[in-house]
Amino acid sequence: MRSRNKIDLNSDVGESFGNYKLGLDEEVIPLISSANIACGFHAGDPGVMRKTLALAKKHGIAPGAHPGFPDLLGFGRRNMDASLEEVKDYITYQVGALQAFAAIEGLTLQHVKPHGALYNMAVKNTAIWGAVAEVLARLDSRLVLVVLAGVNKDELQHIGSRFGIRIAFEFFGDRAYNPDGSLVSRKEPGSVIHDQELAASRIIKLVREGKVVAMDGTEIELSADTICVHGDNPTAVSLTRRIRETLTASGIEIAPMGSFV
Amino acid sequence: MRSRNKIDLNSDVGESFGNYKLGLDEEVIPLISSANIACGFHAGDPGVMRKTLALAKKHGIAPGAHPGFPDLLGFGRRNMDASLEEVKDYITYQVGALQAFAAIEGLTLQHVKPHGALYNMAVKNTAIWGAVAEVLARLDSRLVLVVLAGVNKDELQHIGSRFGIRIAFEFFGDRAYNPDGSLVSRKEPGSVIHDQELAASRIIKLVREGKVVAMDGTEIELSADTICVHGDNPTAVSLTRRIRETLTASGIEIAPMGSFV
Amino acid sequence: MRSRNKIDLNSDVGESFGNYKLGLDEEVIPLISSANIACGFHAGDPGVMRKTLALAKKHGIAPGAHPGFPDLLGFGRRNMDASLEEVKDYITYQVGALQAFAAIEGLTLQHVKPHGALYNMAVKNTAIWGAVAEVLARLDSRLVLVVLAGVNKDELQHIGSRFGIRIAFEFFGDRAYNPDGSLVSRKEPGSVIHDQELAASRIIKLVREGKVVAMDGTEIELSADTICVHGDNPTAVSLTRRIRETLTASGIEIAPMGSFV
Amino acid sequence: MRSRNKIDLNSDVGESFGNYKLGLDEEVIPLISSANIACGFHAGDPGVMRKTLALAKKHGIAPGAHPGFPDLLGFGRRNMDASLEEVKDYITYQVGALQAFAAIEGLTLQHVKPHGALYNMAVKNTAIWGAVAEVLARLDSRLVLVVLAGVNKDELQHIGSRFGIRIAFEFFGDRAYNPDGSLVSRKEPGSVIHDQELAASRIIKLVREGKVVAMDGTEIELSADTICVHGDNPTAVSLTRRIRETLTASGIEIAPMGSFV
Repeated sequence: MRSRNKIDLNSDVGESFGNYKLGLDEEVIPLISSANIACGFHAGDPGVMRKTLALAKKHGIAPGAHPGFPDLLGFGRRNMDASLEEVKDYITYQVGALQAFAAIEGLTLQHVKPHGALYNMAVKNTAIWGAVAEVLARLDSRLVLVVLAGVNKDELQHIGSRFGIRIAFEFFGDRAYNPDGSLVSRKEPGSVIHDQELAASRIIKLVREGKVVAMDGTEIELSADTICVHGDNPTAVSLTRRIRETLTASGIEIAPMGSFV
Repeated sequence: MRSRNKIDLNSDVGESFGNYKLGLDEEVIPLISSANIACGFHAGDPGVMRKTLALAKKHGIAPGAHPGFPDLLGFGRRNMDASLEEVKDYITYQVGALQAFAAIEGLTLQHVKPHGALYNMAVKNTAIWGAVAEVLARLDSRLVLVVLAGVNKDELQHIGSRFGIRIAFEFFGDRAYNPDGSLVSRKEPGSVIHDQELAASRIIKLVREGKVVAMDGTEIELSADTICVHGDNPTAVSLTRRIRETLTASGIEIAPMGSFV
Repeated sequence: MRSRNKIDLNSDVGESFGNYKLGLDEEVIPLISSANIACGFHAGDPGVMRKTLALAKKHGIAPGAHPGFPDLLGFGRRNMDASLEEVKDYITYQVGALQAFAAIEGLTLQHVKPHGALYNMAVKNTAIWGAVAEVLARLDSRLVLVVLAGVNKDELQHIGSRFGIRIAFEFFGDRAYNPDGSLVSRKEPGSVIHDQELAASRIIKLVREGKVVAMDGTEIELSADTICVHGDNPTAVSLTRRIRETLTASGIEIAPMGSFV
Repeated sequence: MRSRNKIDLNSDVGESFGNYKLGLDEEVIPLISSANIACGFHAGDPGVMRKTLALAKKHGIAPGAHPGFPDLLGFGRRNMDASLEEVKDYITYQVGALQAFAAIEGLTLQHVKPHGALYNMAVKNTAIWGAVAEVLARLDSRLVLVVLAGVNKDELQHIGSRFGIRIAFEFFGDRAYNPDGSLVSRKEPGSVIHDQELAASRIIKLVREGKVVAMDGTEIELSADTICVHGDNPTAVSLTRRIRETLTASGIEIAPMGSFV
């Protein structure tokens, strides 16, 4: 796996709802290259969507949709036994709503990244990735679908080809990986990496070498186009800033995924 | 007021939600020329929106959005003290969501008609019509805004000109009118006309002569582009069928509003 | 298994929501002995709960709570990956809300029967039955917990003893059973019995002989305290009426579960 | 108006929802004597209700219900054109749900204070206070109804007598008053008092002298049983702490309203 000279940094934003504020969007958006904007089902609301797009526009960050399950109470993090047809309808509805706000701002959505349980269920059942890809192809074939790097790569590339859309593979610097490239379950001890230095260094290694050290100590190859970073709290923002600086200092350009995948 | 040779028939459809069925859409859609499709806030859900658009497409009926307040429990019929900015955001969100389903079906939305309390509040406060018009202009200036005929005509025409969108004026055959062209409040006795023959004959008179007999017996001039008909129950559907047949027999063409306003 | 001289008939009622009507409650309530009233999460709303309790009171039918997942869009029929703590909180909230309406009517709730996916998940994971039982014990230990007959009987009796509440076992006349006493999955052909005569005769056999003919033709023993009947449509109501008449004609008393379990 | 030796401090708590945190409940609850707990319509959720009651119990604070309109998106702050019957149903549902969590904790609710727009609408339309009072009388006549001090005192006392429930009058230290005892509208400049010292001194004056200086500089008599304090942010908490200390230093006992009204 060769080194890359470009990488995308994405973050989940626009997760406030009504009177509830969540995330330091004003601080993290200038640090990333792609913004995953919640669409009102698991988080976000019409006003928040409008303001978040305006913020992305102001900083020249590529906006994307972050659709989830209709479960505000569970923040879209609980698996729901929805049919593929329901998933397609939920994606269409949410992406369409965000496209309208983007149109009003003179913006075009760059990508779609399913949220939480929907993302996790898709990782275990690629038919869900296929369902999402089918919707994107019909809505706007320029939309990039963000998927988890490390597993099912060929199948995911095939889904992209079949529907004529681009796929961006995503890496998590703060998550442990199994030797087969899958994420260690959050239920396992050590699945989440809390050491900032370590998370940053894993991201640098991934970008430069295309490699990650798995849970068992083995070094595995992993190719990713975009890194998921966080802006939930001041610590997360400073880690994101550090990752950005380290990448830039290493001669790696931080660019929106749509410009190179 | 001269006679017209074209009129639009519109009806609120796609009001089912999840396991709840409402309205005889399969029966009423073939009888109308414009379908006002609920968008998930006061009624409708993503799956219902998709199916209703497919039904409109099958019968060649022009689809439009029927956005309402976020009040499923009250079916969007309760006034809510929402700001103009909130109204604009709610319209953007809902119309955008329906546009996405339309795009997937290869359809373009023809019109937008606010629902229930939002419509009634706009009738009393034209700033709301202005807010809706502004959104339509920015989303797709081909969208026709459906407003109540009889009051504020000049101001509404001005709103249309200002934002560069077309306005369609709507008449209710089953509602009594005040001599000033406004609707008699539902709280007044006699405000709703239950006599089918009478409602049908009022519609014919409106279309042929541009006149309606007001509550006090005076005949007033009223110009309308579209007639609101219903499909909630078998009686409503048969009344709609009768209205359609009478209009056609009178040499009046039933055509989607977007083709002539 | 000996014959019984008393049986309860329960039905899911109060499932309307806002402007949406569902179920022929006025017709089915007089035919049953226990009413499972939806509590606003998957169906029902505050006004519907009040009216349904008034209807139960009028006909002297024992009221109970029918709590479900917070998934109105899916009618509570989709499995949700909720924690046991969330399940307990959802049960507490919904049963408490219904208890308040009962208090206002001078009624006391007799039972609690989880709805849809929550019921089905409990059948596969008895820890959920335990969580529900724990809540009932703390809210009102007179509340009877309705569970599926045929499987885990000893464990369920043990849960009842442990928390000091009574358990009522439920039989479905319109569902096929596996030889082990479990329900045949709805995904299997033949899982739902549409033949009215057959469903009625299975119920009579169950009540008289304590036996049911399983999917493979073998006759298995099954003991149940309450039979689930339906009131969704005129056919269901007439089947319920027929079941009631046949049981009564056989000398079997139809009585609320709380009077004999 | 004579000085009082007891006063209640109440605060809106339990306003978090799902993944959204709101308010410094852990800090403000120990400082107050009555906790108004949101019930899931405008804020709060089943788990939050449980945890907030546990917190109130831990600190020996009297718990009460803080029911609002079903408008999570608007945080219950937008007027809704709900009927009196709907208001009664919403109060019953929410208070009942909280009563269940209280029962599980071995607690009894002390009071009910409607939230936001519901409270404000009741101030302008005492029929709403009557509707709420009627529900409380039927649910548990020990429940104290919290109303705005300063206006309609006789009528409110009469409502209490009529339904056999106690009324507690509430004062806002951070709001300006009109000479007639009503609150200055939030739309007016100077309606909210941001000066901590001033707010604290107004509360002390109210408690000691039964007087408040109105917007026009005149001193008016005002009698109140409970003071609304805030815990939204660190500044609000420190103001609440200061108010508490000043009252205590003045020999005024801070006691739950239910113990003296």
